[in-house]
Amino acid sequence: MVPRLTTALKGPLLDLEQRILTAQPTIEHWFRTQWQEHTPPFYSSVDLRNSGFKLAPVDTNLFPGGFNNLNPEFIPLCVHAVQSAVEKICPEARGLLLVPENHTRNQFYLQNLEQLARILRQAGLNVRIGSLLPEITQPTTLELANGGSITLEPLVRKGNRLGVADFDPCVVLLNNDLSSGAPDILKDLEQTVLPPLLAGWYNRRKSGHFAAYREVSRQFAELLGIDPWMIDPYFAVCNQVNFHEKVGEECLSSQVDLVLTQIRAKYAEYGVKQDPFVIVKADAGTYGMGIMTVKDASEVRDLNRKQRNKMAVVKEGLQVSDVLVQEGVYSFEDLNEAVAEPVVYMIDRYVVGGFYRVHTDRGVDENLNAPGMRFSPLAFDSCCAFPNPDCAPDDTPNRFYAYGVVGRLAMLAASVELEEMHQ
Amino acid sequence: MVPRLTTALKGPLLDLEQRILTAQPTIEHWFRTQWQEHTPPFYSSVDLRNSGFKLAPVDTNLFPGGFNNLNPEFIPLCVHAVQSAVEKICPEARGLLLVPENHTRNQFYLQNLEQLARILRQAGLNVRIGSLLPEITQPTTLELANGGSITLEPLVRKGNRLGVADFDPCVVLLNNDLSSGAPDILKDLEQTVLPPLLAGWYNRRKSGHFAAYREVSRQFAELLGIDPWMIDPYFAVCNQVNFHEKVGEECLSSQVDLVLTQIRAKYAEYGVKQDPFVIVKADAGTYGMGIMTVKDASEVRDLNRKQRNKMAVVKEGLQVSDVLVQEGVYSFEDLNEAVAEPVVYMIDRYVVGGFYRVHTDRGVDENLNAPGMRFSPLAFDSCCAFPNPDCAPDDTPNRFYAYGVVGRLAMLAASVELEEMHQ
Repeated sequence: MVPRLTTALKGPLLDLEQRILTAQPTIEHWFRTQWQEHTPPFYSSVDLRNSGFKLAPVDTNLFPGGFNNLNPEFIPLCVHAVQSAVEKICPEARGLLLVPENHTRNQFYLQNLEQLARILRQAGLNVRIGSLLPEITQPTTLELANGGSITLEPLVRKGNRLGVADFDPCVVLLNNDLSSGAPDILKDLEQTVLPPLLAGWYNRRKSGHFAAYREVSRQFAELLGIDPWMIDPYFAVCNQVNFHEKVGEECLSSQVDLVLTQIRAKYAEYGVKQDPFVIVKADAGTYGMGIMTVKDASEVRDLNRKQRNKMAVVKEGLQVSDVLVQEGVYSFEDLNEAVAEPVVYMIDRYVVGGFYRVHTDRGVDENLNAPGMRFSPLAFDSCCAFPNPDCAPDDTPNRFYAYGVVGRLAMLAASVELEEMHQ
Repeated sequence: MVPRLTTALKGPLLDLEQRILTAQPTIEHWFRTQWQEHTPPFYSSVDLRNSGFKLAPVDTNLFPGGFNNLNPEFIPLCVHAVQSAVEKICPEARGLLLVPENHTRNQFYLQNLEQLARILRQAGLNVRIGSLLPEITQPTTLELANGGSITLEPLVRKGNRLGVADFDPCVVLLNNDLSSGAPDILKDLEQTVLPPLLAGWYNRRKSGHFAAYREVSRQFAELLGIDPWMIDPYFAVCNQVNFHEKVGEECLSSQVDLVLTQIRAKYAEYGVKQDPFVIVKADAGTYGMGIMTVKDASEVRDLNRKQRNKMAVVKEGLQVSDVLVQEGVYSFEDLNEAVAEPVVYMIDRYVVGGFYRVHTDRGVDENLNAPGMRFSPLAFDSCCAFPNPDCAPDDTPNRFYAYGVVGRLAMLAASVELEEMHQ
């Protein structure tokens, strides 16, 4: 069961997919040379949009949840990839401490955590889960709706080493995006921390990622002889916005206008009939909070109180001050009339699968990763790692290979982004 | 569908499987440290025997065929593993020249070749197949019974670079075991040749492999606190044997006696009721030619002409002069009354699957890889890469994990063996 593309306008994308297929050895070779220069993140997931005329990443997560949504058939790929990652990062590693989000009731998150811990264990690691929650003062086992269970333990820091009781790990793996800052207990550790603390959303900016992605996609587009716009969404940023105080609306409306103008020119060039739109969202943070779909600059002026409240706050009550204005890419994949958005998962430099977020109540121009949203996940039935040359360019394995390629481009951009943060 | 173990005497093996399961993080960590010291072969397959009381490799192939017998579900694992291998060996590689066996009619072999080429292509390599056969003077497409096809091309050597017309590869991959020597056209190439020429059967000796395996299994047994015999077959060698001239029979019978005595002592120690037996086979070569099952030293004295003829010659008519006397390990896995022998496949340091050779006409103490033998392959339904801690130690995924571990021990021994050949 695979969502179908509903747009009639598939010309440019079919051409893109055909070029990606034809150039596969060139592409894989190019990625190999990139990995000689850059270190991939331990893991990542990339939200894609496929509009039929454009295939682009719209968000890259360095602390991915949702491992429970992957196709169980491809778990061996995850295990291989973890083994490869661990070997490079810390060949001596046997003990891995997993530091999760502070959720103890979100079944979806907890099932992700259980699946992630299982993958790490199957790769031959001793895994313990150390919680940042102050109320976890002793090992606490949570029963899961799927019949599984996970045990959270209180973190124990001794000098500059972090662990849990009787467990001194070699590496600390964060599955917590640090939206509200890096806790002191995680700072200045002797052990390798992955991803590094500065990749947390308290520090990271989507605009930094997409600036790095712009350069990566420019090089890749040159390699393939395509317009980089086919894979790269326009964006602009406004800083020091305060929605409550109505500060920064001028910047927002002018940037919205700028980006809409850019998109309009491209739509004209390629004969796209749809209305251009942009997504206005917090430049830091995740969980799709503080997100607006905007088709005209006037919409971001004179926001009413409800709209301002919605935009002002993201996860953990954090105030938004940096705002990203990103080209909206239509989601023209649907499954039984429901909009379907692909998410590609990677561990180390390997694509290990993905799934669709399928939602019946949303439009093609709305964000599916919204608060309280209950998407149904549909696991990819292909691992996205390679194409099938015997199929048409837009047949499932080939469409998924293209997703895997664009996902890896975003992952490569994240590698560059992390290097720049370290400087 | 999985063969079942038919022996009642599973005590020691269950204990071994349990120890392997419990020690998984220790084992994976140990392998990681081994791969810091040693370079795994590009690919390998290992024939195992599971007697219920012993689980041991009996042959390690560095030019594996049979990729067509693997479970298609695990082909993505093969592709990942090839990507990882290529990255290490030759990150610049885009072009790979595959040099196959000189078979043009063996459908099984040709289907293997097609599958192998497909895996390499899916990993993003440009693959061409260059044949050593003098009659291949132009590109020759062979149609396969499965509907596929492969194209063999004449090798073209320019100076010290090997390729085919308009193709200058970065790496040469041999799928030809060089039984009759290293052809001049393959010698002193600038390009990396994998496996190295000296791994060919014209030079390699099973006894060299099993000597390396002895040391590897000793270390591994110490790690797990087991008797190394549980995973290591006894062996002895006679050189300068000439079956036609009846030269070397004394050596053979004394070595057979020695090995049988060693086995008898172990059988007594573990209460094994079966009769000890040894396999007498050529120390070089493959395809199970020149193989005898022997339960008493007298059987190798005064061989009749037919027996001598059978033992004297292996693949491509080569005379046998070095003979291996190897502890026989009973095959106590069966499927619908047929004997089933597992073969584990590895690419780089990764287990990528395997299959059973299933044969109805053979006994538990006979070799299933015999000339003209038509086994039916049964692909493993597990990838052997990791266990399932929720199952019993001898449940399928865990039995297969143990196979993957012992397969990797043999592969590690092959790495050491290749290093020693280079010295």
